[in-house]
Amino acid sequence: MNYDIAGFRAAIGAIRCEDNPVLVRQKSRDFYWYSPILKRELDSVAADLVATPANEDEVRAILAAAYALQIPVTPRGAGTGNYGQAMPLAGGVVLNMAAMDKVTSIAPGRVVSEPGALMAAIDEQTRRGGQELRMHPSTYATASIGGFVAGGSGGVGSIRWGGLRDLGNVLRLRVLTMEATPRALELTGEDLSMAAHAYGTNGVITAVEMPLTAAYDWADLIVGFSTFEAAAAYANALSEQDGLLLKLVTVIASPAPHAYFLRHRHLVTADHSVVLAMVADHSLDAFRAFTRRYRAAETLFDSSRASPDARKGLPPNYELAWNHTTLRALRVEPAITYLQALYPFPTQLATVKAIHERFGEEVTGHLEFVRFNGEITCFGLPLVRFTSPERLNEIIAIHEAMGAPIFNPHRYTLEEGGMKQTDLAQLAFKRRADPLGLLNPGKMVAWEDPDFDYRAGSNFLFQGLEQRARAAGA
Amino acid sequence: MNYDIAGFRAAIGAIRCEDNPVLVRQKSRDFYWYSPILKRELDSVAADLVATPANEDEVRAILAAAYALQIPVTPRGAGTGNYGQAMPLAGGVVLNMAAMDKVTSIAPGRVVSEPGALMAAIDEQTRRGGQELRMHPSTYATASIGGFVAGGSGGVGSIRWGGLRDLGNVLRLRVLTMEATPRALELTGEDLSMAAHAYGTNGVITAVEMPLTAAYDWADLIVGFSTFEAAAAYANALSEQDGLLLKLVTVIASPAPHAYFLRHRHLVTADHSVVLAMVADHSLDAFRAFTRRYRAAETLFDSSRASPDARKGLPPNYELAWNHTTLRALRVEPAITYLQALYPFPTQLATVKAIHERFGEEVTGHLEFVRFNGEITCFGLPLVRFTSPERLNEIIAIHEAMGAPIFNPHRYTLEEGGMKQTDLAQLAFKRRADPLGLLNPGKMVAWEDPDFDYRAGSNFLFQGLEQRARAAGA
Repeated sequence: MNYDIAGFRAAIGAIRCEDNPVLVRQKSRDFYWYSPILKRELDSVAADLVATPANEDEVRAILAAAYALQIPVTPRGAGTGNYGQAMPLAGGVVLNMAAMDKVTSIAPGRVVSEPGALMAAIDEQTRRGGQELRMHPSTYATASIGGFVAGGSGGVGSIRWGGLRDLGNVLRLRVLTMEATPRALELTGEDLSMAAHAYGTNGVITAVEMPLTAAYDWADLIVGFSTFEAAAAYANALSEQDGLLLKLVTVIASPAPHAYFLRHRHLVTADHSVVLAMVADHSLDAFRAFTRRYRAAETLFDSSRASPDARKGLPPNYELAWNHTTLRALRVEPAITYLQALYPFPTQLATVKAIHERFGEEVTGHLEFVRFNGEITCFGLPLVRFTSPERLNEIIAIHEAMGAPIFNPHRYTLEEGGMKQTDLAQLAFKRRADPLGLLNPGKMVAWEDPDFDYRAGSNFLFQGLEQRARAAGA
Repeated sequence: MNYDIAGFRAAIGAIRCEDNPVLVRQKSRDFYWYSPILKRELDSVAADLVATPANEDEVRAILAAAYALQIPVTPRGAGTGNYGQAMPLAGGVVLNMAAMDKVTSIAPGRVVSEPGALMAAIDEQTRRGGQELRMHPSTYATASIGGFVAGGSGGVGSIRWGGLRDLGNVLRLRVLTMEATPRALELTGEDLSMAAHAYGTNGVITAVEMPLTAAYDWADLIVGFSTFEAAAAYANALSEQDGLLLKLVTVIASPAPHAYFLRHRHLVTADHSVVLAMVADHSLDAFRAFTRRYRAAETLFDSSRASPDARKGLPPNYELAWNHTTLRALRVEPAITYLQALYPFPTQLATVKAIHERFGEEVTGHLEFVRFNGEITCFGLPLVRFTSPERLNEIIAIHEAMGAPIFNPHRYTLEEGGMKQTDLAQLAFKRRADPLGLLNPGKMVAWEDPDFDYRAGSNFLFQGLEQRARAAGA
C-alpha cells in the first residue's frame, strides 16, 4: 500500500509533521510488547508519517486531507496502551495528539481538556481547587486523558467509581468525523459508549469532559500476609467498608512483591503476599482499626508514618499496581506476561483460590478490587510464565472453564480483547463517522470481517497488516 | 424520686438553667409520638430542670454537681430523634447542648464542631470551601451533629457512604465521663462504636469530628412508575450505577406520594409509585441516560430544569424521604405509624415484593436504598395503618418471618430498637464512664436488667419510669 504522503503534506501546509523513520516507528508503538503474541504480530508496524496538530482546526485539516487521499489515520495519545490500540496496522498517518494538551475549563465536579493533556498534569491544575480525576491508569504520569478514554477501561479509583464504561465516569466527548468535511459531534450520556473505548476507530476525540471528585492526600499502605488467600480475603472485606475512602486495593501473591518490586525489597520478604492500598488521609484511623481486626495482617509500609528518608526513591503504590505490576515483573523476568480476568461476584474469592491452587508458580496471582455493577469484586492481572502461545491459550481456557472470563490482552482488536461480540452501537457510529474505514484500520473486527467467528479459537488477523508487511518486504 | 435540684443549681452557679415546667417539658421530648406505643409510654416524661452549658467547662461542672448529688443527666441535641432517645425517663437534668454550636475547624475531608451545631449550619460553613457532610437525616435543617451521632444511624448520603456505624463515617468523639471529676476521653477508630449510637448513656459528647466530602449542587428528581415493584427495580439498578453520584434513592408506593406530599400533589397522581433521587449536577446527563432505559419511567419533576416558579414552595426531596415520609403521612392521617426494616441483599427486591403483596393497604411500601457492607440494598420505613399494639407486633413478626429484620421504632431502649442483644463494648464503656448509671437512665437494657430476655416478646419497661410516674401521681 503506497499512500500519497507527499500530496498529504502539501495539503496540510504548515502543520507539524515528522517522517524520520526512527521517530515515526517510535510513535507507532505502545506497550504491546508486554504480550509475546502481540510483539511478534506487531513488531514491524510503522506509520509513514506522524502529524501533530496544535488545535482542532489542524485536526480537521489533517482528516480532510487524509480522507481525500484515502490515507489511514490512527489517533494516538501518549502511547501507553498495552494492546497496540494506537498502532497503525495499515501504515499511513499517526495522528499524535500530544500537542493538544491544554486544560480549558475547571468547575465543581468537571474538567474539560484537550485529549493530549496528561492525567497527572490535569490533576495538578484541578488540585489547586481541591479536585482531582476520579480514576487513572498506573501510567498516570505519562498517559493522556484522550488515550485513557479511547483505550482504557478503569484503574486506580475504580474501587470507588467503577469503570470508564459506567455512566457518569466520562461526561462529554467532542469527536471529529473522518469525512470530506469533518463534522464535530458532541457525545454525552448513552452516546458516549459509541466512541469511548473504541481505540479511535470511529472518530477523533478533540475535547474530553471528565467528572472530578475531591482531592485528598492519599497514603500508601502495604499490608503483608503469609498466604495469598488471606490477603485476598482481607482486601475483599476492606473494599466492602463503605465509609473508608480508598483509591486502590491490590493483592499480589508471593513471591512477586519481593522478586519484582526492587525498591521495596527491604520491606517485603519472599513469603509475603501483599495488599497495596491508597487511603485518604482522613480514613487512615478507620483503615488502621479495620486492619487490626486481622491478626495475620502485618503493616509493612505506611507512607503517612514513614520518614522522608524511608519514603525516598519509593515509587507510589499505584506504580506497583494494575499494569505496572506486569511491567516490574517483566523487567526482572523477561519471560513473564499476563492476562486480564474478571472474578465475578459473589464467588470471587473461591474462584481466585481455585485458580491459584490450580496453576502454582506458572501463574502468580494479582488482583485489583473494583466496584462492578454496584458490587465489590476483583479483576485479575495474573503474571504468567510464558512458554508457548498454545499453553497461553490453554491457561485462558482453564480460567474461563473455572468461571473467570478473560479479556485477552494478547489481541489487538476491540472485540477479541473485550466482549468477544460485535458492539452494534460502535459499528453503527463508525458507519456514520468513518464511512471509508480509514480510522485506525484493523482494530474493529465487526467492520473488517462481520462474519468472524469468535468461538472458532483462531485470532483475527487483519489483512491490511499482512499486505503492509508484504509491501515492506517487496 | 426527689432530687436535690436546689443544691444542684447552687453547685453550678451561673450556668444557664430553665425550670419553667412548660419549657422543661418541651425540652424533655422528641418525635417519640410518631409511635402510638411510645406516645402512651412516654407522654408524661419530663425532667426537673434543663441546663444549657455554653462550653465544655460548664458541662464538666454540671456533670460533677449531678454526680455528687446522684441526679440523672440526659444529654439532648436538638430533640429530633424518634424513639425517645433524649427523653429523661427518670427525670433529673436534661443537658441541652444547643448552645454549644460552634464549628471549630475545617480541613480537607474533616470538620470539628461542638455537638449542638446544626448539620445544615455546619454545611453552610464547610460549603464555602467546597465541602459538605457525607450524610444527614431528613431533619437536616433542625438536627444537631451530636444528636445525629448519638442517636442516628444514617440517612441522606448512605446510598454513597453506608451508615454511621461504618468505620470512617465518624472520625473522632470527645466524651466527658460522669464521675466525681469528669475525664475527657478522645475516641477514634474502633473505640467510636462504644459511644456512637449510645443515646448518651455512657458519656457526654463535647466535640465531634466528622468526615467531609465534596459539595455539589444536588438536583431533586422525582420519577414515577405505575407499580411499586417497577419503581423498586429501577431504584435498585440506579443505585448500582457506580459512576453516578447520588445522595438519595427513595421509593414510595402509591397512593402515598399523592396523598401525603401536599405541595407536590399537582405533580403526582394517586396511581404513581415514585422514586425520589438527589443527583449531583455533573451526574445529571448520566442519570437521564439511565432513566431513558426504563420505558415505564416518567420524570415527574427535575429541579434542575424546573422554573423558579415551579420550584417555589416545594420542600427538597430529602424532606420527603426517610422519616419525613412518616411525618408527612401522619399529618394527613394521624392513625399512620411506621416500621424500620432491612431487606437483606441479594434478595431485597423479592422480599420487598412479597411483603408488599402480603399486606396491601395496611402497610404502604417505603424504601431507602443504601450501601450496606459493600453492597446495594434497601432499608424500609413502611407506613403502617395502626390498629392495635397486638396487630403491630403481628406485622413485625410477619416481616421477620418473611426475611426482613425489624429495627423496632416503638421501643425506647438501645437494644430493642437495634440488634436485640447486649452490646458488650457499650456496656463496658458505661461501667468506666458512668459508674453510677446516671446518664440517660433506662435506655440501656444491659445495664438495667442484664437478664432481660429479648425473645420473650414483651417490652422492656424501665422501672425508674414507673416510679417516676407514681411519684408524680402521689
